Amino acid sequence: MKRPTIAEIAARAGVSISAVSYALNGRPGVSDATRRHILAIADQIGWRPSVAARSLSGSRAHSVGLVIAWPADTLGAEPFFMRFIAGLEGELSRRSIGLLLQFVDDHRAAIDAMRRCWAERRVDGMVLTDLWRTDSRLPVVEELGIPAVLVGGPRADSRLPSVWTDDTAAVTSAVDYLVALGHRRIARVAGLPALEHTQVRIGAFRAAARTHGLPEPQVIETDFTREAGVRATRTLLSRRDRPTAIMYDNDVMAAAALNVAQEMNVAVPDELSVVAGDDSQLCFLVRPALTALARDIQAYGVHTARVMMDVIDGRSPQSQPDTPTRLVVRASTAAPAT
Amino acid sequence: MKRPTIAEIAARAGVSISAVSYALNGRPGVSDATRRHILAIADQIGWRPSVAARSLSGSRAHSVGLVIAWPADTLGAEPFFMRFIAGLEGELSRRSIGLLLQFVDDHRAAIDAMRRCWAERRVDGMVLTDLWRTDSRLPVVEELGIPAVLVGGPRADSRLPSVWTDDTAAVTSAVDYLVALGHRRIARVAGLPALEHTQVRIGAFRAAARTHGLPEPQVIETDFTREAGVRATRTLLSRRDRPTAIMYDNDVMAAAALNVAQEMNVAVPDELSVVAGDDSQLCFLVRPALTALARDIQAYGVHTARVMMDVIDGRSPQSQPDTPTRLVVRASTAAPAT
Repeated sequence: MKRPTIAEIAARAGVSISAVSYALNGRPGVSDATRRHILAIADQIGWRPSVAARSLSGSRAHSVGLVIAWPADTLGAEPFFMRFIAGLEGELSRRSIGLLLQFVDDHRAAIDAMRRCWAERRVDGMVLTDLWRTDSRLPVVEELGIPAVLVGGPRADSRLPSVWTDDTAAVTSAVDYLVALGHRRIARVAGLPALEHTQVRIGAFRAAARTHGLPEPQVIETDFTREAGVRATRTLLSRRDRPTAIMYDNDVMAAAALNVAQEMNVAVPDELSVVAGDDSQLCFLVRPALTALARDIQAYGVHTARVMMDVIDGRSPQSQPDTPTRLVVRASTAAPAT
Repeated sequence: MKRPTIAEIAARAGVSISAVSYALNGRPGVSDATRRHILAIADQIGWRPSVAARSLSGSRAHSVGLVIAWPADTLGAEPFFMRFIAGLEGELSRRSIGLLLQFVDDHRAAIDAMRRCWAERRVDGMVLTDLWRTDSRLPVVEELGIPAVLVGGPRADSRLPSVWTDDTAAVTSAVDYLVALGHRRIARVAGLPALEHTQVRIGAFRAAARTHGLPEPQVIETDFTREAGVRATRTLLSRRDRPTAIMYDNDVMAAAALNVAQEMNVAVPDELSVVAGDDSQLCFLVRPALTALARDIQAYGVHTARVMMDVIDGRSPQSQPDTPTRLVVRASTAAPAT
């Protein structure tokens, strides 16, 4: 293993290791000419201070942690995470900060992983995603004083800064659009019930239905998987008063709905309008192409990285809404057939 | 920031900081009773040795690096990476090893990132994916002596251990199947031409065609994106002697091909058989569901992590083939209409 060392610089410069140390740390004890010579050689052989040495002296790990409590199978099918992580890491790496990524099965394991990371000084801060309505990670993070950013709306039970999207506005705009097309029976296939954003979106959905004087809408909670989307869609389309429009909390379930509609001989969009959740590439690969709520997920990751660095650098950022979600209309929505 | 410290243990135990240090490091200077008392308190408040301190003493960073040189947009659409990373990280975290993830634009940036990570002792080893036929990263990794694992077949130009899938066997089995169905004009929409596995697969494809006495097949190289898949499929289906079967190097392009076939009024599978590359969820969300070459990508990540740890621990592992790829037949392939 040939990592550039101070000894190597000393040998090449023909000076003592102490002289190199003085020069690299900007301390007196070497002449200006020697210092310049030493710095040039250090640069030339690619020497960098060890992150461990820097961590001990400056108490910085130069890494940010992201612990995702989500089954790996589901993750592979969720383009959201990869785009979010790409944005997050891209912005961190511009500042020479690494992203320490961990996947765990549940919040208990996430808490263990966060405690260990933090106690071992592997990270300077943590990004928390997929917040639950009651989230056991938050009191731990606050108690340990870990610099953290929440990806999800500001909450009454935490003073940690957050970066969030206005899910209420997004869901309301989609309901408004469907009602304007003439739909009265609109259902929602929601995400994991424990998640805060699932409940916010369900609340917004029900409120929008009430505002328009619609009958109390059907809502089915799921675990975001294709299989759950298939089952929920079959249930809804088997009802005597089946909905003429269904909104899905992600893209995979909306794509699966197209297959169920075909299987049950329900024409999309004439007999059923379908709205997807994230506007990933899947929406324009399936037929009919899916109308979807769209936002720039990579930019969301970049935004989160900036707030994270503000927290780590002690700038006490406010919670910040991300750019608004837009409704992108494609071929899966239309006026209901009369 | 309240990380458990040695000072805190000393205060709680009513002993000096030196005594705590002796106890935690297993050195003499404290009685057995005091040592037990100190260790119990350390455990109770969740104290862990700083990874920086451990790194300085034991020269281990307790992290593995993965630098992905791939545009973030494409990544979000490639379920491969998320499943691979989930497997890799899952196995590393069982051993309390972190995964330091970086996304960069090209190999030049990847080399910079790897040099910096290594010089700063942030990682104990590196996983290299998406190997090019001529790959500028390999000589740098070998010159620096970075413990590394290549994800991709063993190569003549490197002695680094690799974990790989037998792409030749996989492509050959798919061609054999299509020929058995009666296809004679089979084309291939390949991946990024610079990638080693793209060329291995093209080579296997051409060789299988020759073996079966087929005419020299059409091969179009792409950048793996949906747009490139659309263009390549239009080109192939616009030929007078258009193919009756096309194999795609990933799933996104195969799914896009279904849309092009529909647009050009070419019936799948009667007039065109389509074979996809990775068997992600996309293959059974589109209609007709896609026949695909399938492998357990998460297990591939786990396997890679194990070989990485063997390298780091100095066990000099051999290059190892991963489990064989299987052809999963669905509705997108059939005998060609006569």
